[in-house]
Amino acid sequence: MAEFWIKPNPADTRLTRRVTGLDEHGNRIETSVPTERPLTLFLNGQEIVTMMTIGDYPDYLALGYLINQNMIDADEPIAAIDYDEATESVVVRTQRKTDFEEKLRKKTLTSGCAQGTAFGDLMEKFETVKLDAEAVIKTSWIYALAKTINTTPSLYLEAGAIHGCVLCEADRPLVYMEDVGRHNAIDKIAGYMARHRVSAAGKLFYTTGRLTSEMVIKTVQMGIPILISRSGCTAWGVELAKAAKLTLIGRAKGKRFIAFAGEDRIRYDADPKQAFEEDSRHSRKSSRADDAA
Amino acid sequence: MAEFWIKPNPADTRLTRRVTGLDEHGNRIETSVPTERPLTLFLNGQEIVTMMTIGDYPDYLALGYLINQNMIDADEPIAAIDYDEATESVVVRTQRKTDFEEKLRKKTLTSGCAQGTAFGDLMEKFETVKLDAEAVIKTSWIYALAKTINTTPSLYLEAGAIHGCVLCEADRPLVYMEDVGRHNAIDKIAGYMARHRVSAAGKLFYTTGRLTSEMVIKTVQMGIPILISRSGCTAWGVELAKAAKLTLIGRAKGKRFIAFAGEDRIRYDADPKQAFEEDSRHSRKSSRADDAA
Repeated sequence: MAEFWIKPNPADTRLTRRVTGLDEHGNRIETSVPTERPLTLFLNGQEIVTMMTIGDYPDYLALGYLINQNMIDADEPIAAIDYDEATESVVVRTQRKTDFEEKLRKKTLTSGCAQGTAFGDLMEKFETVKLDAEAVIKTSWIYALAKTINTTPSLYLEAGAIHGCVLCEADRPLVYMEDVGRHNAIDKIAGYMARHRVSAAGKLFYTTGRLTSEMVIKTVQMGIPILISRSGCTAWGVELAKAAKLTLIGRAKGKRFIAFAGEDRIRYDADPKQAFEEDSRHSRKSSRADDAA
Repeated sequence: MAEFWIKPNPADTRLTRRVTGLDEHGNRIETSVPTERPLTLFLNGQEIVTMMTIGDYPDYLALGYLINQNMIDADEPIAAIDYDEATESVVVRTQRKTDFEEKLRKKTLTSGCAQGTAFGDLMEKFETVKLDAEAVIKTSWIYALAKTINTTPSLYLEAGAIHGCVLCEADRPLVYMEDVGRHNAIDKIAGYMARHRVSAAGKLFYTTGRLTSEMVIKTVQMGIPILISRSGCTAWGVELAKAAKLTLIGRAKGKRFIAFAGEDRIRYDADPKQAFEEDSRHSRKSSRADDAA
């Protein structure tokens, strides 16, 4: 089986906690749940946001968040990323002063909260991106990725209630990140890619989360031409994917999937009958532990 | 069957869109996906946030958001809630001037973004809430609610990729809200309860979303003593539920569930064998269309 560059570490005891509960018969049982802790992000001297995260890669999460929010560029020279466990904070220090602090101050004065204007910033970059027109996705890769990812030990299989996002190349999963926070998994991949200068060319995303506008925008901004999810999508997600010529594949489970946009990149080389069917051994801790996004 | 005060309206053509796609055989198919549109919220003259929503109850969503973020009290006298479809904005006007604008301005000046400090505000109120100690939850209600809610026509059954949250009393679902946005469904219920002076006494929440810290905090703030989800929970969600003496029941699907906190409110009056088992007719558009939270 292909080697991951990063894969989940369900054995890391900081990432899950054993809790006891009562089952439907009133019997005391023990089970695992994912941790969730706050992480406050600073860009140089400026407090940006407090995120809820499992806390495994605060450095990648911090950097990826800033990149995906267009607060810094992916190639911005980074002086240091300092994580402090005691104060649950992480500081990204850029080599040169960013103009983001001044921009943010102006925005918060005029519109109350940076959150309200973050979306406008996202769209600015979105419209300039040209995705790889040569990239293809073979249906055999979709099935192979589903099998590898769903049988790889993960916090999801161990504890449920968590999201996963995987950077892949052809049928090989490379960087498999999980998190309780909505967009943290994709932001951690963005941080990893920036730190290790990983090119988006020929890559694709496999995610557990719903394909909403924000997921589509982040994927396009990161230059990834193909986005596959086990979940469904929103109408705006489809519309944005079409506008950006992103290949958007949703409801991918077992042999089934639906391509909602960018269908021309798909090569039908597999017999759907050969697809990996998930058995209960690989099912989630809850059928809706999936709930994330 | 019990009557809902509000239930999903999958026939409302503004809430879903028909899209075409290619299935796993390369065949052109048509399916429904939920809409997703921005809604910018103002409190009097102050822009607060832009949310992504299906857009069915902008007034309840706006009011509930402000209440759940502790920006206004649930009993704050409201002069008007003005929704403008053209500009995709909603303005909540209070009868007296709120001190929130000044508070927000100070916060954004000191810490950059209101988002970063919203969590602190949430906790302030959380610690003062006393939940109904007399409330009980019968296991027969859990099964009855699951059956009614999962067989009621919904955007979820129609289009997937959406969250649901239901305000219930005993085995009767009262207010069933759905939304693409993470916490919009629960915020719409908060807005409904404030507008119609619905008491939290004897009520419970049934939700599709994961039981994270924020879901627990909002439920407690709203004074609801029991929270049930089909999904799993995080360690911090469990910890906060215990601190607030909230009954937290997760992974509730078919006959199974796990009570993670507040088990003393549970009355085991049902035979799990009698539980409603979902068949494929009632399954979601995607097994992970569930993905939301």
